[in-house]
Amino acid sequence: MIIMEAGATEEQIEHVVKEIKKFGLRADVSRGEYRTVIGLIGDERKIPFAHFSVLPGVKEAMMVETPYKLISREYSKFFEEASEGMVIKVGGIEIGGDEPVFIAGPCAVESKAQLFQIAEGVKKAGAHILRGGIFKPRSSVHSFQGLGAGGWEEAEEALKWLYDAGKKFELPVITEVRGETQVDLVAEYVDILQIGARNMYDQDLLTTVARKGKPVLFKRHFGAGIEEFLSFAEYIAAEGNKAIILCERGIIPIGKGKSYTRYTLDLAAVPAIQKETYLPVLADPSHATGRRDLIFNMSCAAIAAGASGLMIEVHYNPQEALVDGQQMITPEELEDVISACQRIHKLIAPGRKR
Amino acid sequence: MIIMEAGATEEQIEHVVKEIKKFGLRADVSRGEYRTVIGLIGDERKIPFAHFSVLPGVKEAMMVETPYKLISREYSKFFEEASEGMVIKVGGIEIGGDEPVFIAGPCAVESKAQLFQIAEGVKKAGAHILRGGIFKPRSSVHSFQGLGAGGWEEAEEALKWLYDAGKKFELPVITEVRGETQVDLVAEYVDILQIGARNMYDQDLLTTVARKGKPVLFKRHFGAGIEEFLSFAEYIAAEGNKAIILCERGIIPIGKGKSYTRYTLDLAAVPAIQKETYLPVLADPSHATGRRDLIFNMSCAAIAAGASGLMIEVHYNPQEALVDGQQMITPEELEDVISACQRIHKLIAPGRKR
Amino acid sequence: MIIMEAGATEEQIEHVVKEIKKFGLRADVSRGEYRTVIGLIGDERKIPFAHFSVLPGVKEAMMVETPYKLISREYSKFFEEASEGMVIKVGGIEIGGDEPVFIAGPCAVESKAQLFQIAEGVKKAGAHILRGGIFKPRSSVHSFQGLGAGGWEEAEEALKWLYDAGKKFELPVITEVRGETQVDLVAEYVDILQIGARNMYDQDLLTTVARKGKPVLFKRHFGAGIEEFLSFAEYIAAEGNKAIILCERGIIPIGKGKSYTRYTLDLAAVPAIQKETYLPVLADPSHATGRRDLIFNMSCAAIAAGASGLMIEVHYNPQEALVDGQQMITPEELEDVISACQRIHKLIAPGRKR
Amino acid sequence: MIIMEAGATEEQIEHVVKEIKKFGLRADVSRGEYRTVIGLIGDERKIPFAHFSVLPGVKEAMMVETPYKLISREYSKFFEEASEGMVIKVGGIEIGGDEPVFIAGPCAVESKAQLFQIAEGVKKAGAHILRGGIFKPRSSVHSFQGLGAGGWEEAEEALKWLYDAGKKFELPVITEVRGETQVDLVAEYVDILQIGARNMYDQDLLTTVARKGKPVLFKRHFGAGIEEFLSFAEYIAAEGNKAIILCERGIIPIGKGKSYTRYTLDLAAVPAIQKETYLPVLADPSHATGRRDLIFNMSCAAIAAGASGLMIEVHYNPQEALVDGQQMITPEELEDVISACQRIHKLIAPGRKR
Repeated sequence: MIIMEAGATEEQIEHVVKEIKKFGLRADVSRGEYRTVIGLIGDERKIPFAHFSVLPGVKEAMMVETPYKLISREYSKFFEEASEGMVIKVGGIEIGGDEPVFIAGPCAVESKAQLFQIAEGVKKAGAHILRGGIFKPRSSVHSFQGLGAGGWEEAEEALKWLYDAGKKFELPVITEVRGETQVDLVAEYVDILQIGARNMYDQDLLTTVARKGKPVLFKRHFGAGIEEFLSFAEYIAAEGNKAIILCERGIIPIGKGKSYTRYTLDLAAVPAIQKETYLPVLADPSHATGRRDLIFNMSCAAIAAGASGLMIEVHYNPQEALVDGQQMITPEELEDVISACQRIHKLIAPGRKR
Repeated sequence: MIIMEAGATEEQIEHVVKEIKKFGLRADVSRGEYRTVIGLIGDERKIPFAHFSVLPGVKEAMMVETPYKLISREYSKFFEEASEGMVIKVGGIEIGGDEPVFIAGPCAVESKAQLFQIAEGVKKAGAHILRGGIFKPRSSVHSFQGLGAGGWEEAEEALKWLYDAGKKFELPVITEVRGETQVDLVAEYVDILQIGARNMYDQDLLTTVARKGKPVLFKRHFGAGIEEFLSFAEYIAAEGNKAIILCERGIIPIGKGKSYTRYTLDLAAVPAIQKETYLPVLADPSHATGRRDLIFNMSCAAIAAGASGLMIEVHYNPQEALVDGQQMITPEELEDVISACQRIHKLIAPGRKR
Repeated sequence: MIIMEAGATEEQIEHVVKEIKKFGLRADVSRGEYRTVIGLIGDERKIPFAHFSVLPGVKEAMMVETPYKLISREYSKFFEEASEGMVIKVGGIEIGGDEPVFIAGPCAVESKAQLFQIAEGVKKAGAHILRGGIFKPRSSVHSFQGLGAGGWEEAEEALKWLYDAGKKFELPVITEVRGETQVDLVAEYVDILQIGARNMYDQDLLTTVARKGKPVLFKRHFGAGIEEFLSFAEYIAAEGNKAIILCERGIIPIGKGKSYTRYTLDLAAVPAIQKETYLPVLADPSHATGRRDLIFNMSCAAIAAGASGLMIEVHYNPQEALVDGQQMITPEELEDVISACQRIHKLIAPGRKR
Repeated sequence: MIIMEAGATEEQIEHVVKEIKKFGLRADVSRGEYRTVIGLIGDERKIPFAHFSVLPGVKEAMMVETPYKLISREYSKFFEEASEGMVIKVGGIEIGGDEPVFIAGPCAVESKAQLFQIAEGVKKAGAHILRGGIFKPRSSVHSFQGLGAGGWEEAEEALKWLYDAGKKFELPVITEVRGETQVDLVAEYVDILQIGARNMYDQDLLTTVARKGKPVLFKRHFGAGIEEFLSFAEYIAAEGNKAIILCERGIIPIGKGKSYTRYTLDLAAVPAIQKETYLPVLADPSHATGRRDLIFNMSCAAIAAGASGLMIEVHYNPQEALVDGQQMITPEELEDVISACQRIHKLIAPGRKR
């Protein structure tokens, strides 16, 4: 990490960047109101910091030995806008701002009618962003893979529905990209690109998605520790895209005997991650529990733990959903969840910082 | 499980119990206001249910194939007092009642002065029950094992301090029993006997503790699934003691890299367990997180998830504590936690049943 | 699964395939010496099996409700060539045949000289296939990512070295593909395409790789259960490519305290998987243990457990390796490993079937 | 750890021990052929090492900061008898010696006839030690708990059968003690006291068992890391009993979906533990896999990994066994296992040290 002097010129900054490249690393230039900080991407052990600390305009050059630097609190404390936690703006919605954000919609888009009906419901219930899966990652090739599995045309049609539903109900939209070849198409239609838990380790996908420049919702893999999760988020930041929304969605349950929840929602990860990074952290109680009857409790718990929002699956007829019906709630139930969560947030927010 | 007719006589009940014993099983007789239900303890496959269903006074005889029956919702639905969730009364305190209960105190009793000072602090902060470890289970024989390690006399002296502190500050007291030989002594001085996470699988200890007839706080082992946890709680109930307070205290973290929390607090286990059993469920954010700076968030989250109370470690000088200093909060911080939790509980309680 | 009669005609087979497509599923046609079996790819619940069982040439139509069918023992028992376990031939090497196969080489290709020197060493030591990483999946964007990270030209140059080393020392070669866009390039130069543990869940990559028609070495993710591992292998088989070499490489260690091995090598998974599928199963003791001093023991153990071969990282100067030096052995050590493994294999093979 | 000079007198040693006690610690005095080493039990940070290093007869006083010291390689290297790995002798059998040791017998003793029949079978098959469970730890209070559950008289009768079977077939015998109150009784009849996986963390039981002075077979808990396992073994050594036989018996499986093995046999733990401690390490493929059809493979694998022996469950009619029938093999199958294991051991032993 190289901290430039307050009055460093553009030329001086460019000179430093050029020098960094000479050593085979990349530079992340963050221009704050008062000063510019240059993060190094790559193996810092190759860099002679002494050499850099005497370059014109350089205030300090120091090594940061952690697998995540660009998204760390340490790195952000030089920038006013991120020092209190970064706020990511999508449409008129602020993620990581003063109010918790609710992303809701069907697990999988099944038809235009289904999507529009649910979109209307979640809007009325108070949700802020509309979700809908088109390319569905599935554990079995013999399960429904989303409308995206029907070919590019069908996928594009479903994406248009999502786009149109978002416009009609004034909700920014989000969907998952599962493979590199889907990124360009999906990015045309949605406001936020989601990388699912199963793809967390897929660094080529992360890089490709990051380069679109759109906000990325990034889910923790169910087998990943927090350090790994943040290390892979760093792959997105390394492409210059720091509009990263982290999402805890449950880790592998341990212990013998049957599982009472699909995954173990690791809520302590929410504040623990917030102490490490300036990025906003959401929780997904739907996939974590896999149980409709636990959504209310775990939504409240996630907000109480400090989450900046929730991602919840909603369906009008949960028992008829093609994917994950047992974990969906109705728009009416969503309204109760949102209302309880907002009151909890109000109650505890003053005593807490992100 | 054998459900007696509403007007079954004592003789008929006794006859059924005698018949059960003939098959090498034990009987758990639960007398409700309207009817009596007899639970079977042992291998039900040995029982000819057809034979039992025609005994005088028997309404229905049925096999319940689950490793926990006596503590199950199914078993309790025949009794009014437990059908809405069982309330365990200790002193004037109700665990599992309308208000969340806070158990607080030092991890380990270090001296009389330390204990009394903290007891005064937690009372003032609003805690309901005083905790203090005397027989400390430790991962290393080379660590401080509690004053109980100094011999029976020292142990008894420390137990008297706990008893006296409880009397002075009008707080029921709880401490852990780690081995069978400690049970008699400890039961003389405390109101609730605690079985720690490391001893969850120690069925002989469970049986010995259960037979004292006092309420038991039973912690989930960090490697145990929910089914195992409840199956071992059943060992306590099988001795006729159903005053069991369950406690979630974190499971083994998974994932590579450093752990950001000591264990993973499995908060979804709280409502999931509540749907299985009528017993109250607490959470212990201190051991689960091992981090003082996460106690506030995770306490709020546990109550929001539906916990009937919390167990929190408190010390005046956390950095000087002989055991687990990094996870203790001060009495002042406890007051904030209790106040926030009570407000959250009030806010969500009407929309939720245990 | 649809089993055709022994004398079923091509027309009858095609008719069945056409009917399957009508219901939105795909067909996997396996022509055995005596009969043809047609596997269904997709949601079998959509298929009216009664309708299919009366089509001309159909002997039996039955539903197989498991997430992996095409790679299952059940499916293979109709084909003589796979019924005793499938043998995958690469160059003159048989994987899954009578002799254990040893894949060895550097974790990462660092230079032409390094690769050729190691290739010569492993050939002399008795290895059968040469490995060398060019696109390295790494947990940190700040670590060396392989020569593939230097751009397509550098990647292609490194691939050519691998190709040339294979030709010179008469060793088929294998390298990992990490992203969809790398598949075409890599497939030009190597005999076996490897999908690494971190990408196990990346179904789009799996599909893309499978379509190249080359043998695929498929590693189990460190957070994946066996059922998941096989379910994702099914994605490869669903593209008509059954030349799949499975590889156990260790799962996430559990338990508190420091890890003595990098992962937990799940050797019982080797015979357990062999009972489920006809595909050959290898083990990778290098990544699993991360410890050079355990490679000999765990290599012997893997072969004793029934593995069809091993994948081992080798370097001339382990301490100078750019990636994973602490787990590499020298070519001399490899020779000892191979020799011990071959003797163990001989000793136990007669008493064991795959 | 305090290393005495070669010619240190008994008086000097006693003086050091007295000084250690002054600081509230205990001393473990190990008299080697050439020198005496005194291990400290308790919190070493209380000890002023400078003070000790100048006491008469003291060569060196140094702090060893690990949760296990008395069982560590470091501690043993001063004693010739343990420096190559400790050999524990029971009857004429050497555990940890030149030959692998096989402990076999029924999971649970069901009757005298059953025990004697199996004992005869395992003797003929080549086993060295007879096992038979009397106090069975079970996950459900509703399962068969062993004959020990029938009361002290029934337990003693079963213990006598075990004793008699051992005498008749010239096999040392081993059984599990599950609770402190059972220790005295069990120790009268058996040669080795077993502490089961579920009781690994039960430090009071460990201490009570250790004090009997008999060899202890100590099993790793299925949720325990290696460091924890060794730290709890240290509780046994701290009582002056170092005749500890460690046993790996499988850890909790991770990953979604059904488990193909009951636990995950962590075979790399065998050599990893051997590098940490001089104690012999066995493996239990029966409990680990829970599958009769995997016992042969995993037994061979365990010996190949370096285990000093195996613990295997045997029954004449596995399908009729009251406990764990699905994991038992017949005496005939045991003979095959032992024969294969002995050949593997011979083959690899010269190239390996414990």
